[in-house]
Amino acid sequence: MSQALQQNGHLQMVRHQNMEAKAQALTPALFHHDVYPQGVVSAVQDAQQIHGWRADVAASVQDFFKQDFFQGEHVIIDFGKHCVGYLEFACEAAGSPPDAPAHLQFIFGETLAEVVEPFSDYSGWLSSSWLQQQDCYLDELPHHMRLPRRYCCRFLRINVVALSRKFQLRFTSLKLDTVTSASLAQLPTCSSNDKQLQRIDEVAVHTLKNCMHDVFEDGPKRDRRLWLGDLRLQALVNDVTVKNYDLVKRCLYLFAAMTREDGMVSANIFVKPQLIADDTFLFDYALFFVDVLQEYVAVTDDRETLAELWSLAWRQIELALERVAQNGIVRDSADWWSFIDWHEELNKQAASQGVLIYCLSKALILARDYDVSKVSLLEEKISWLKAAAQRELWDAQSGFYTSGESQQVSCASQVWMVLADVGTPEKQRSLLKRLKSHPPKIQMNTPYMMHHYVAALLQVNEMEQATQEIKNYWGAMLEYGADTFWELFDPKRPDFSPYGSKLINSYCHAWSCTPSWFIRKYLL
Amino acid sequence: MSQALQQNGHLQMVRHQNMEAKAQALTPALFHHDVYPQGVVSAVQDAQQIHGWRADVAASVQDFFKQDFFQGEHVIIDFGKHCVGYLEFACEAAGSPPDAPAHLQFIFGETLAEVVEPFSDYSGWLSSSWLQQQDCYLDELPHHMRLPRRYCCRFLRINVVALSRKFQLRFTSLKLDTVTSASLAQLPTCSSNDKQLQRIDEVAVHTLKNCMHDVFEDGPKRDRRLWLGDLRLQALVNDVTVKNYDLVKRCLYLFAAMTREDGMVSANIFVKPQLIADDTFLFDYALFFVDVLQEYVAVTDDRETLAELWSLAWRQIELALERVAQNGIVRDSADWWSFIDWHEELNKQAASQGVLIYCLSKALILARDYDVSKVSLLEEKISWLKAAAQRELWDAQSGFYTSGESQQVSCASQVWMVLADVGTPEKQRSLLKRLKSHPPKIQMNTPYMMHHYVAALLQVNEMEQATQEIKNYWGAMLEYGADTFWELFDPKRPDFSPYGSKLINSYCHAWSCTPSWFIRKYLL
Repeated sequence: MSQALQQNGHLQMVRHQNMEAKAQALTPALFHHDVYPQGVVSAVQDAQQIHGWRADVAASVQDFFKQDFFQGEHVIIDFGKHCVGYLEFACEAAGSPPDAPAHLQFIFGETLAEVVEPFSDYSGWLSSSWLQQQDCYLDELPHHMRLPRRYCCRFLRINVVALSRKFQLRFTSLKLDTVTSASLAQLPTCSSNDKQLQRIDEVAVHTLKNCMHDVFEDGPKRDRRLWLGDLRLQALVNDVTVKNYDLVKRCLYLFAAMTREDGMVSANIFVKPQLIADDTFLFDYALFFVDVLQEYVAVTDDRETLAELWSLAWRQIELALERVAQNGIVRDSADWWSFIDWHEELNKQAASQGVLIYCLSKALILARDYDVSKVSLLEEKISWLKAAAQRELWDAQSGFYTSGESQQVSCASQVWMVLADVGTPEKQRSLLKRLKSHPPKIQMNTPYMMHHYVAALLQVNEMEQATQEIKNYWGAMLEYGADTFWELFDPKRPDFSPYGSKLINSYCHAWSCTPSWFIRKYLL
Repeated sequence: MSQALQQNGHLQMVRHQNMEAKAQALTPALFHHDVYPQGVVSAVQDAQQIHGWRADVAASVQDFFKQDFFQGEHVIIDFGKHCVGYLEFACEAAGSPPDAPAHLQFIFGETLAEVVEPFSDYSGWLSSSWLQQQDCYLDELPHHMRLPRRYCCRFLRINVVALSRKFQLRFTSLKLDTVTSASLAQLPTCSSNDKQLQRIDEVAVHTLKNCMHDVFEDGPKRDRRLWLGDLRLQALVNDVTVKNYDLVKRCLYLFAAMTREDGMVSANIFVKPQLIADDTFLFDYALFFVDVLQEYVAVTDDRETLAELWSLAWRQIELALERVAQNGIVRDSADWWSFIDWHEELNKQAASQGVLIYCLSKALILARDYDVSKVSLLEEKISWLKAAAQRELWDAQSGFYTSGESQQVSCASQVWMVLADVGTPEKQRSLLKRLKSHPPKIQMNTPYMMHHYVAALLQVNEMEQATQEIKNYWGAMLEYGADTFWELFDPKRPDFSPYGSKLINSYCHAWSCTPSWFIRKYLL
């Protein structure tokens, strides 16, 4: 995810060196795999395609390596799939000896639009420094070069900005040295017989793989870092695919390695050049530390890690409970941060209430097994919060839970009430039916929120509808040619961006890879 | 120099490996010297200044290192003098942890105009790849970086193109690691008592030093390579200042290492990534191989090198003589290349006749000492060519030598007739006087041509006028703030560029450093 900006430079943060040392010791080795160009394409305007651009095959790779490029020419290379790695190329001069530097510009696009629509027109509010480009000035030819930054692309545009009139440029090699910490060598077979689900699973696994580096990144293009909310979903998919449990463990220790003075875990972590916890704090993400730990312990039975991290997990519960008002409802306020979904108008009170109950239930699972002293308190709080939700948030007239002073009705609120197991199974089931038949104005914007909707459907045993929602939503991205799943997707507004430009959206985003978990876990 | 473009990719070139090995063995070590920022300046429009820009002191270096730069801000750093080297800097984030790459743009200017007038407006015909800039995207902060290319600047502009709203950028160190193969440790004192000449000498030596790298470069910004015509003047100044004779020797061997099939030496040489002689051939430059060799032997008495290179020098004489018509005059034609001066309208026949006679005289000096078999032939040819010049080119009516079919009268023709010692000393003297009193339309455009004019004045013992011309011409560059001498300078048109843009002119150019030779050799 990327969250709207908090600025909390004044906050005191505390380093926990033993935790950091554990995390560093778990730094994974990266697997390298060379990916070569599959063809040269030209971009053609086509209103039927995502962002209005179609890639037509323009030349073969053989032709590309034979072409003498003149100043001002360009080429768009198609690597055939979404890649994360380092560009290496070699080129030489054709014609007279090169009597001036060669000025090349490389533009990397997860989508065709990124290499066609000029970055100079970008006016989004996220930093333009995320737009993937590099100008190179080659003083000597022939030249072999490896660009030092890691890029993320399916398409690579090379603009031959300037040569001299005495020579042309010819490429003699070009590849991506792709990297990931995910090994697919032992990938369990996808059990589904449905061709579309098989393809969705394949793309979801590719998405996860391309987000796995020395941490679980949210997106390899942007923000390229560890967010707790993304980690939670990645870890689930990891459990049924790559099974790199050490990486999940490392990420848990990274969050534990630097916390706010009061013990709250940060929403995200930077690891280079040194570990820094961001000064962004989110109510829901901090609570998810409990959930990630519970799921990790459930699958690994790593009780040593549980022993080390339990008190920090518990601290998140305590801090979250401090936000609960006397009436048993999470207090809403204007200066409050909970993520839930990328939606400017969404009121997050009810959904946050749901997250709190959900995470207390996860804590209860751990407490029963490991710290029985906490069991009765947790049981009590869960009952109290559920009853409060039912009493304070349920609106019999609309048949929905409301949120905030304005009594907003949103998808997110209903979904999280179900995931929190508020109300009888029957009531949860009918609530989700009503959500479909009477869609509220405040819809879902991200695969992240859609994940929770599908999870809620599965919780109430609506297997068929869950499968259909996956096919409709993730399947629509496939139809648009996705070979990794996107950070943002609204089928009605394919250009939607909460950042003010589709160019800065991430098109390989961790929180979108969960169909693999649903398909494999629930045998869809 | 930079010559208009010849394209001779079809020509067969021959490598001479023993010559190349000699040249490589003489590759010089480079001296390194750190140069630190002297201040921060702002550019102010001022019609009185060169290119219309004045540098006003805006802040101290201390302030620069304290400043927190926001996205969109920029700074212009003044290094206090012209430098050639590698930029190293370190920077860190201020504010929240950096949550996006930092996009910085570095623009290097020998002149203030280069860092103020946008490169995007450049429309000259030389490659824009020479314009010195680099965009850097820093994924991690703090960051220490050394830009891989060598730059040439007095001014450095840093544009902080993009950060995020969560952090600012602060520089913690910044310097240029300057390089040269010239040691000034043993620099002989300048004998002149004239303050202005002392300053001109100082700037000329700085110009030579900044052009001395692993070869004598024409200009460290552009073309950054070994041209024979520039080498010839650099070697003279080297003789009375730096005395790096091995570098002159290396350059002679480089020209000898790869020649045209018929033995003609190229006008210029590339040395990286491997030695390549350019496919540009110039009548005058090839002949100057003889002159450089003669001057080198005169000062070093290195008879071994003379023995190895004499036959190649002689070959240049033979090839040049092939271009002489029956009437004893170098044939003119439309497809012919002789440099003489940067002047679109200049007819080069008469001046080339002068260059030929001048170089035959230099060959005669060597032949008398080393190869007496050639003496009588040379004496004969020199007499014949001089007589022909007098007979065919002298125009009694105008009192000038003419050139080409159009009987063009130019400064260059007169100057080279004097340097060729055509006519009596008295006639040469009065010719130069007439050149001053009746200036022809075709004037001189470069310090290179101005050098030959001053040399001609000194040849006829016009010491005072020679001194005055140096003071007027090179002194005017000083008044404009030059701390190295420029490739091009027309006092009447300070923005003149034969390339279509002053931004691409070289402002530290080898052929402009010869005042030191005049001042030190002739004790001005």
